[in-house]
Amino acid sequence: MNVNGKRYRTIWEKEEDPTIIRIIDQRHLPHAFIVENLTTVEQVAVAIKDMHVRGAGLIGATAAYGMYIATLQAPPDSTEAFTHSLIADGNKLIATRPTAVNLAWAVERQLKAVEAAGSDISAKIRAAHKTAREITDEDADFCRRLGEHGLAIIEEISRRKHGEPVNVLTHCNAGWLAFVDYGSATAPIYAAHDRGIKVHVWVDETRPRNQGARLTAWELGQHGVPHSVIADNVGGHLMQHGMVDIVITGTDRTTYTGDVANKIGTYLKALAAKDNDIPMYVALPSSTFDWQIRDGINEIPIEQRDAAEVKTIQGLHDGEVISVLLTPEDSPAVNYAFDVTPARLISGLITERGVCEASEEGVFSLFPDKKKPVSRF
Amino acid sequence: MNVNGKRYRTIWEKEEDPTIIRIIDQRHLPHAFIVENLTTVEQVAVAIKDMHVRGAGLIGATAAYGMYIATLQAPPDSTEAFTHSLIADGNKLIATRPTAVNLAWAVERQLKAVEAAGSDISAKIRAAHKTAREITDEDADFCRRLGEHGLAIIEEISRRKHGEPVNVLTHCNAGWLAFVDYGSATAPIYAAHDRGIKVHVWVDETRPRNQGARLTAWELGQHGVPHSVIADNVGGHLMQHGMVDIVITGTDRTTYTGDVANKIGTYLKALAAKDNDIPMYVALPSSTFDWQIRDGINEIPIEQRDAAEVKTIQGLHDGEVISVLLTPEDSPAVNYAFDVTPARLISGLITERGVCEASEEGVFSLFPDKKKPVSRF
Repeated sequence: MNVNGKRYRTIWEKEEDPTIIRIIDQRHLPHAFIVENLTTVEQVAVAIKDMHVRGAGLIGATAAYGMYIATLQAPPDSTEAFTHSLIADGNKLIATRPTAVNLAWAVERQLKAVEAAGSDISAKIRAAHKTAREITDEDADFCRRLGEHGLAIIEEISRRKHGEPVNVLTHCNAGWLAFVDYGSATAPIYAAHDRGIKVHVWVDETRPRNQGARLTAWELGQHGVPHSVIADNVGGHLMQHGMVDIVITGTDRTTYTGDVANKIGTYLKALAAKDNDIPMYVALPSSTFDWQIRDGINEIPIEQRDAAEVKTIQGLHDGEVISVLLTPEDSPAVNYAFDVTPARLISGLITERGVCEASEEGVFSLFPDKKKPVSRF
Repeated sequence: MNVNGKRYRTIWEKEEDPTIIRIIDQRHLPHAFIVENLTTVEQVAVAIKDMHVRGAGLIGATAAYGMYIATLQAPPDSTEAFTHSLIADGNKLIATRPTAVNLAWAVERQLKAVEAAGSDISAKIRAAHKTAREITDEDADFCRRLGEHGLAIIEEISRRKHGEPVNVLTHCNAGWLAFVDYGSATAPIYAAHDRGIKVHVWVDETRPRNQGARLTAWELGQHGVPHSVIADNVGGHLMQHGMVDIVITGTDRTTYTGDVANKIGTYLKALAAKDNDIPMYVALPSSTFDWQIRDGINEIPIEQRDAAEVKTIQGLHDGEVISVLLTPEDSPAVNYAFDVTPARLISGLITERGVCEASEEGVFSLFPDKKKPVSRF
């Protein structure tokens, strides 16, 4: 999407030299837009580990390019030494954030592609380059497609409101910064905005890490989408007073029964949407489905993070990003990172194949190929 | 309650000289405990206006002492000049925070008391002193009494849990810092803790002004009550997983039908409590009832405050309290300060006269004297 009026993805090859991979170092957003060059596997590993890049889709694409860089660095003298180096680099990348599914998936896909390219080293390098581009383009394409399906829902609301701005509430950052382009929750919003449909986005700041206030507000602002940042407490009041037309969030993991794990606080907004008859949609590329888990609330493990993320916060002061203490020095804090919204509170799932009900029947109607054969004994 | 092991109220007379009134300058909490002396009406006005003191009960008590100070400063030569000066000072105090009901109420009660004391100036001064003490003691007494009624509810849960800690979730600061002593939402908690009943409090940080993280965490910590600060997003997850036994909040205004206006975000917690069958109580001295309004959601005006409260936050950095920017410079923010929780989501109201259902019948069963005579024509 646009940054300072110029079209960007979150990861791209340097035009004059495609062996140099460029990313936006998101740690500095929204206070500074800094592009970083990645030319070694070590740099790629640091970029993922220290969250210069984050978000399932973008982590996968970055790891894919990391493996391409690995092929450029691996000893070309023998296939064995080359493959050995590649596997070691792959493991290094996988170890950076052990819970991110897309990471291992991208590394494995690269290893297979390189193996399938035969014994010629330069063919292997070309295969890794091609696969990195494919993974990146696929991610963008899935988001673009789900954006089209979500657009239809926003268009319908816009028609009903006779062109008055459609007020969308979103939580956390499921924006293009978390993917290669478009984002998941934001894809329908960008699609609508780019076609001239009036939208306005309520951006939950999303404590404790403030991904809404820092990232979603920034990317919407750069692309010219009208928005307002609100404290996480505000959404219910807005819904009670007709100021929200639709809620759209992303998800970190969704069960095949339609239970949605997403950034902590999503459940509270879903309850308020239900209480006020406001549609609540979750947008996801199908890679985010968990095809094993039935009961989201009882089976999805919820990460507990450092109390310091609650007790302190970072912000800009005198041109410098610093951290301030918010609580009494001695008060303990507890920091759950996600919650699970039960399927009964969700109006629908927006995927790259279309929109479906948040239920086992709904999900398998769009993804019959994912249905496990029923054992008949 | 206790601060550094010593018993405090939020406002008191200096022992050696009762014409010097002392308050805790709450602007510096939780990072510094600073006691301020008030000896002029001007100082009292600044203390209320600039929020050295805040909270309905404490504002009333401070204004009452402000009027006592006004009698000490007024020209004693003639009753007329004395009264004239007193009325001017009263108006000055009322103007500091025009929406606080307790302010005007305290000033008027003082003016009446001074008038009723006859024409002797020293009798008038004694009357103002006595009334300031009465208003202060009454506030503490109402909170203490509602604490006893709330205690019974916590005791019952404690019995059911065989003495395991009772997990109370609260939002914002309805603590002793907002009153003269005990607080409203916190009164049952302190009562339980002081009798050896195990309690643990989940303290919502309460963005944007963080009264939970700054004030509630501090006062609970000082009194030795186990607690954990959480982001406002977390409560729903905790309730889904059996980690909350009861929600208790305060209120800024409650209709006689049981609709509760309170700090923004209270409605979201009430929804989550309902969805998980967890009792949700609101504690209030009866002065907080609005005997005129029937429909809280449509009739209670909701204050919109400065966007800067959302875009920036204050905290401690290198021993200094500073403000940092959280959002992109250009992103707008919207800041509603309160929301209204409909009576249907509330398990009960805890008042100084007992606990009642959040309904017209419930409220008038405890406060039949407040019922307006039905007109028969």
